Amino acid sequence: MCGIAAYYSRNEENAAASVVTELYAQQHRGQESGGIAASNGREITVRKAMGYIKEGISGEDLKRLSGRLAIGHVRYPTRGTSDLAMTQPYVIETLSGPIYAIASNGDIVNYEEVAGELRVKGVHFSSKNDGELLGRFIVYYHEREGMEIADAIRLLMRRIKGAYSAVFIARDHLYIFRDGWGFRPLTIGQTADGDVAAASESCAMDLMRCENMREVEPGEVVVVTPSKTYFLSAEDGLIKPVFPIRRHCVFELIYFARPDSSQFGEYVYDVRHKIGARLAAYDEFDADVVVPVPDSANFIAMGYASAKGIPFNMGLIRNHYVGRTFIRPDQNSRDEGVRQKFNPLKDFFNNKRVVLVDDSIVRGTTIRKLVRMVKAVGAREVYLRIGSPPVTHSCYYGIDTPDKETLIANLMNVDEICAYIGADSLKYLTIDDLAKCVKQSDRFCYACFNGNYPLPRTAEQRGSAC
Amino acid sequence: MCGIAAYYSRNEENAAASVVTELYAQQHRGQESGGIAASNGREITVRKAMGYIKEGISGEDLKRLSGRLAIGHVRYPTRGTSDLAMTQPYVIETLSGPIYAIASNGDIVNYEEVAGELRVKGVHFSSKNDGELLGRFIVYYHEREGMEIADAIRLLMRRIKGAYSAVFIARDHLYIFRDGWGFRPLTIGQTADGDVAAASESCAMDLMRCENMREVEPGEVVVVTPSKTYFLSAEDGLIKPVFPIRRHCVFELIYFARPDSSQFGEYVYDVRHKIGARLAAYDEFDADVVVPVPDSANFIAMGYASAKGIPFNMGLIRNHYVGRTFIRPDQNSRDEGVRQKFNPLKDFFNNKRVVLVDDSIVRGTTIRKLVRMVKAVGAREVYLRIGSPPVTHSCYYGIDTPDKETLIANLMNVDEICAYIGADSLKYLTIDDLAKCVKQSDRFCYACFNGNYPLPRTAEQRGSAC
Amino acid sequence: MCGIAAYYSRNEENAAASVVTELYAQQHRGQESGGIAASNGREITVRKAMGYIKEGISGEDLKRLSGRLAIGHVRYPTRGTSDLAMTQPYVIETLSGPIYAIASNGDIVNYEEVAGELRVKGVHFSSKNDGELLGRFIVYYHEREGMEIADAIRLLMRRIKGAYSAVFIARDHLYIFRDGWGFRPLTIGQTADGDVAAASESCAMDLMRCENMREVEPGEVVVVTPSKTYFLSAEDGLIKPVFPIRRHCVFELIYFARPDSSQFGEYVYDVRHKIGARLAAYDEFDADVVVPVPDSANFIAMGYASAKGIPFNMGLIRNHYVGRTFIRPDQNSRDEGVRQKFNPLKDFFNNKRVVLVDDSIVRGTTIRKLVRMVKAVGAREVYLRIGSPPVTHSCYYGIDTPDKETLIANLMNVDEICAYIGADSLKYLTIDDLAKCVKQSDRFCYACFNGNYPLPRTAEQRGSAC
Amino acid sequence: MCGIAAYYSRNEENAAASVVTELYAQQHRGQESGGIAASNGREITVRKAMGYIKEGISGEDLKRLSGRLAIGHVRYPTRGTSDLAMTQPYVIETLSGPIYAIASNGDIVNYEEVAGELRVKGVHFSSKNDGELLGRFIVYYHEREGMEIADAIRLLMRRIKGAYSAVFIARDHLYIFRDGWGFRPLTIGQTADGDVAAASESCAMDLMRCENMREVEPGEVVVVTPSKTYFLSAEDGLIKPVFPIRRHCVFELIYFARPDSSQFGEYVYDVRHKIGARLAAYDEFDADVVVPVPDSANFIAMGYASAKGIPFNMGLIRNHYVGRTFIRPDQNSRDEGVRQKFNPLKDFFNNKRVVLVDDSIVRGTTIRKLVRMVKAVGAREVYLRIGSPPVTHSCYYGIDTPDKETLIANLMNVDEICAYIGADSLKYLTIDDLAKCVKQSDRFCYACFNGNYPLPRTAEQRGSAC
Repeated sequence: MCGIAAYYSRNEENAAASVVTELYAQQHRGQESGGIAASNGREITVRKAMGYIKEGISGEDLKRLSGRLAIGHVRYPTRGTSDLAMTQPYVIETLSGPIYAIASNGDIVNYEEVAGELRVKGVHFSSKNDGELLGRFIVYYHEREGMEIADAIRLLMRRIKGAYSAVFIARDHLYIFRDGWGFRPLTIGQTADGDVAAASESCAMDLMRCENMREVEPGEVVVVTPSKTYFLSAEDGLIKPVFPIRRHCVFELIYFARPDSSQFGEYVYDVRHKIGARLAAYDEFDADVVVPVPDSANFIAMGYASAKGIPFNMGLIRNHYVGRTFIRPDQNSRDEGVRQKFNPLKDFFNNKRVVLVDDSIVRGTTIRKLVRMVKAVGAREVYLRIGSPPVTHSCYYGIDTPDKETLIANLMNVDEICAYIGADSLKYLTIDDLAKCVKQSDRFCYACFNGNYPLPRTAEQRGSAC
Repeated sequence: MCGIAAYYSRNEENAAASVVTELYAQQHRGQESGGIAASNGREITVRKAMGYIKEGISGEDLKRLSGRLAIGHVRYPTRGTSDLAMTQPYVIETLSGPIYAIASNGDIVNYEEVAGELRVKGVHFSSKNDGELLGRFIVYYHEREGMEIADAIRLLMRRIKGAYSAVFIARDHLYIFRDGWGFRPLTIGQTADGDVAAASESCAMDLMRCENMREVEPGEVVVVTPSKTYFLSAEDGLIKPVFPIRRHCVFELIYFARPDSSQFGEYVYDVRHKIGARLAAYDEFDADVVVPVPDSANFIAMGYASAKGIPFNMGLIRNHYVGRTFIRPDQNSRDEGVRQKFNPLKDFFNNKRVVLVDDSIVRGTTIRKLVRMVKAVGAREVYLRIGSPPVTHSCYYGIDTPDKETLIANLMNVDEICAYIGADSLKYLTIDDLAKCVKQSDRFCYACFNGNYPLPRTAEQRGSAC
Repeated sequence: MCGIAAYYSRNEENAAASVVTELYAQQHRGQESGGIAASNGREITVRKAMGYIKEGISGEDLKRLSGRLAIGHVRYPTRGTSDLAMTQPYVIETLSGPIYAIASNGDIVNYEEVAGELRVKGVHFSSKNDGELLGRFIVYYHEREGMEIADAIRLLMRRIKGAYSAVFIARDHLYIFRDGWGFRPLTIGQTADGDVAAASESCAMDLMRCENMREVEPGEVVVVTPSKTYFLSAEDGLIKPVFPIRRHCVFELIYFARPDSSQFGEYVYDVRHKIGARLAAYDEFDADVVVPVPDSANFIAMGYASAKGIPFNMGLIRNHYVGRTFIRPDQNSRDEGVRQKFNPLKDFFNNKRVVLVDDSIVRGTTIRKLVRMVKAVGAREVYLRIGSPPVTHSCYYGIDTPDKETLIANLMNVDEICAYIGADSLKYLTIDDLAKCVKQSDRFCYACFNGNYPLPRTAEQRGSAC
Repeated sequence: MCGIAAYYSRNEENAAASVVTELYAQQHRGQESGGIAASNGREITVRKAMGYIKEGISGEDLKRLSGRLAIGHVRYPTRGTSDLAMTQPYVIETLSGPIYAIASNGDIVNYEEVAGELRVKGVHFSSKNDGELLGRFIVYYHEREGMEIADAIRLLMRRIKGAYSAVFIARDHLYIFRDGWGFRPLTIGQTADGDVAAASESCAMDLMRCENMREVEPGEVVVVTPSKTYFLSAEDGLIKPVFPIRRHCVFELIYFARPDSSQFGEYVYDVRHKIGARLAAYDEFDADVVVPVPDSANFIAMGYASAKGIPFNMGLIRNHYVGRTFIRPDQNSRDEGVRQKFNPLKDFFNNKRVVLVDDSIVRGTTIRKLVRMVKAVGAREVYLRIGSPPVTHSCYYGIDTPDKETLIANLMNVDEICAYIGADSLKYLTIDDLAKCVKQSDRFCYACFNGNYPLPRTAEQRGSAC
């Protein structure tokens, strides 16, 4: 999943501090590690650290990360090992020095094909990370084939298939671009001082006090130079990207994005409210309370409760201090992880009929434990409502879903899932109703629900997603 | 504020793992640093680290922290420097080796008096931390005056005034005790296997699957030996503690404890619901939405909304990834910290009449920014409701309140505060109504609201609270 | 082997800096690790580090090691693991705080007996290190039995058998003492400013510009207080140490001490010169050159060459940068270590008759390689001369000799050793002639040559030598 | 000064272990820091560390430094800051990856000129280190101008003026080359297995068991490929280096090299013996003892003693454990450093007439203290003899001599120096006699003695020597 950020300051040499702030607002997109690369126009300085960005980047680091341009990245551990070598941004060094750096978010489906071609041309890769591929592609065509950088990015868009939202520094130029399908979000904005910011989520732009915020268009390249900012649309230029159709990730709206972000032209919280209302329309029963699995299902549950007129209440308390889970060997270790994250209120559920709302079901193991937990503290009935359709297919465009074989919706039908989970009833949102919760429903990717992949599925062709 | 934990395993040498789990559940009581001390009956091993307990204590550490008894502490930076030297547990070493360790929570008001007496007797202090005073007091009277440890603790209760909930290890014995006023919470429980656990908050005991949970009584000493557990009440023994009256901290219920904890015989969430309902009774107006300042005011706001029939909604999004705040020098630095923590939903507040609910007002700076923020995104009116009476006095028993001079309720009346904050109306809960939200209202301390201190105020006599 | 140092400054709070200098001069006695403990009169600060003392103790450390008294230690890895837990000085902490510290050099033969008695009395040991035993013995009898510290040291001398030269801090008092046999060296001196220094070797005192240097007498206790220095001889006081007879380690003079040190009333270089001259008297042949195995045999070889009138020359070059030996797997790994340490001059040995001089033979493996090496580069004949008698017995008093079974002089007679080593002739110094090289020959221990142990051999009773 | 090493193994992937051994043998050429770069033919791994090479490079490091080719460097802190950024080898990374690395020894006099030209062509330098200049020069002409690497090195020899002995890796090729003047030494050799080694000093080759050892010729390029080794002489190829004349550094023989090395066709120890004998011929007096300033003057003193028939003896003991010097503020700090390094034997110098031998005098401060020290311990007369002519000029080719203004031989005549130092007589070797100690005296540089610089003096044009 991961998140990216960029900042181009017009007057100050401390763009890195702004990027830290942007990444902090996007920490939910990746807590494993993070990094910043800053350019003073002549040379790039980089700093990466495991863990949270504010813990990893010190005031001393910020002083060293001097310069008007900076980019950054927070990483979520999907494929690839958990170490700094897999952490972006990547600096690409040539005889001209450390003048190029890239950070990206997504998942490339023809990694091996493109990397193989570049290897034949003498390009070396220090990792199998998607970000490094994007960066070396651009630098190769710029330095060795003499192409303008913006053209090299356009060529990249023709050649590299998959999801990628990216920010790229070359000396004192910042390039912001996004694949032609628009899988992952990417927002740009401008401050009153003329500074330019970009981030995966708009909530990061709020912290920068940006005005004129908008999404980077799929296939668009935004170029920020020391004197100006210009926009190359997918239609501009000689090398035109070829784009089948827009395919935004609907899961960003359901689960991944922060509720205060806007993505793909939608307010995230508002989509979730609508999902809740749609779900409420499925039910005619009476219940005592609507309880969300916090925090991702909060707005769906509030939407449900408000549509239905049943009281909303937070009967499950979430411990926000994430971290490694130590298992005490003398107990049922399977339940420990869930217990450490969620705890039910005492005497709250007693004899109540509870509408329990979650955003989605993947393997079903967590929600099963939660339903049991709620029943164990006295709930009379648990009606489970899910704010998305059954997840039946893996994602190849940047969401960390497991192999198809372990998706519970592939192994059982809804009744069986309900029985397995131990709920008294279970309802999912339909794809049609999900589509009705967004404005331009034909611009979204629903592949994880219906298998209609916008691009061929080539798991074995992929590198390490970012 | 801080939190403590203890565990005595009957069959396993890994009590430290359980203490980590208990501390993790209480991480909200202190994120600055934490530590664990484990005893194998002959020798105590200790490990302290800055930051979150799960990050600081590794699997390797846990292997070294072997033994059936362990105690732990999470620290909140109140007085004293932010370093490991101030982090508990304290191991007190004598010629008999590292066999004593202590962790405590509270604030001692006659620190200098007692420490001075011990210094005269040749006792050395490596810090001015309350926990070290408690520990060295016990060890002095045990080792040098030949007193039984339980008696030394009883003597401590006569001599040391203030708030302290503490856990103490001596070789293979665990002692759990609490000051006679019962200022700070302390819960004990037993597992099905006969293991004994103690923690500041009951939510930690849930993770341990404890049964028979109850509060340690004020003035009580619980002694856990390798073969049994026994309880010395305040009335037992020759050296009787002298206790004026019980004085539980009502602020634990309003703000500090986790909603899923029970304290002083109350469900925390339930007290907050009742507070919300009491507040609701003050108002007769119509409003569009009830919005809490998350997370501490969530249940108060839900209680208000439910009593009033106005929809509850989470219009302010909180970033849970705490950490150092970097200030970008080119912006209004005063607002940055609040902005980084809270962000309002867009188009949510448009033209709405908002009941904004918070748990308390101390200096007023944060709520002022939040009210402005909510108005800046379109709220028509903001009615601010506070789940506690005006805070007019500093706490000397373990809550980190600032000097009286900076408490806004000492500087202005309610109308002036309302104007300063920029709300359209402001109402506080009265002390009388607060008292009605708990069962035994005469057992609580309300000193921060009315200045009726159960013990003399002696700021200059205090050490470093824990 | 190891080395110790102490310093009591009359006017400055930086005794630790002087101790670093003293230890640096004694680095040859131990390179594995080192440490310093400094007392400001109220509290002791300690710092230990692996490797060389000047690398391990930084300027920052020295600032923290403030105070007028300091002691230090450099460690040679004999028995016991190679880590900081085995590194002295040991601080012994009691309720009175960290006010005691000790550093010692030697080997105690009844460790288990004495430690066992103290354990029964409730004393805890964190290691099996001799130094800790000495320290806890003193503190136990002082704190728990009410004995004056000097008396406790006198009792120690009656009870603890073996080799120990030691320096002990108690608050603002420094105690310097040595076992009654005088196995290991210990020198004290005074500067023009009245500062008092002590060290294993007198070369360290030269750096301190000490005057009035002399050995601490066996059984003597030197007490340095803030106002004066006084000397308790073995005959003073109520508790008189019982001393069989003086037994200085003759090996210190042959091999271990620096040539510029004085020990046991002898100039080390001078004893070695005499040894060389004695050896020369054994031979009547003509040879071309006298070559030492550097650096320990340099002065023996110079003594030989000068007595014989044969030119002295340094045909073997020693690499002084010690460190771990990496073995290249494609070569004869056995020879690598010796090769990395010694290299012969080219064309130097061609057709020459060489008197090769070494200080001693233990296992015989190194000298065998050196003889081969010298022959391989052209030496016609190699006459090996050894500045000590055959080593036939293990040392139990502080020299790291291997088990008796691996001492080559126990496995072969001199002719066989000569053949094994590949020399053309081999002569050892006789014990009688060795005795003639020192002034008071009956005050020395020759146990490693003749098995006449001054104390019973009790390998299994020993702790970890220091 | 510094030292370099290279190894190409024909059968094993552990060339780095051999380079560590070679560097260890050359540790006297630089103790500040060191590094190793190893190539597996596709990618270069690098590891640098402060301090001794054996301490800095662990067994774990060696595993990572896998590959058949490796180069290394030990650094002496001349110009430039003391940190790892100045430590070689330098890896030069391009889009082809980390496939180039270089280590060099010497001092380039037209650094700014050449670096400036490359900067204009877009080449970036991360340091002002000579080694980086050499490396980027080669890579630039190879990658951007399409030149063969050997040709790029030949071009380098035409363009870059000064002293440089260098080893360069490009993927699986090793290049070994040396400037046309032959200022600094560089030896190559081959093992019985066909492995190729190179090092600054031949003593390192002894450890590798090399046969067929010879110096790399000035202007020669040795190329080692996976299948063969070939030699490009200064006369080969299209791009011919232009060489004025050979100018070996005579100071390497006098002082810097290890006595067991061969350099410039001379045995180092033998040249020093001859120098001693030449000096002896100047004197007709009788003296009691010849004492060297150890270790650099040992062989000069032995040469003198043997020629003169006066006993040689090591009256000054040197502490080989170098390291930072802590100054005790209460003493004459100027003398501390010398005292910590050298200590005189007691009662050795009493009333003796001493010939004190040193290799050279630069500032005169150390020898002055040593003469005083020797007199203070009783020497009747001190005749100081110096194994080189007066040093009157700075070196620009790799020896760390100070500014001309601080060279004592520029400030005083010999009588004045003698008086300043406090010796009873002082004699220097003449340049003519020095020339007679080597075979091909016209091939040496004597600039530091006579100012005849083989290349223009351009201090301000230099980078940071290596």
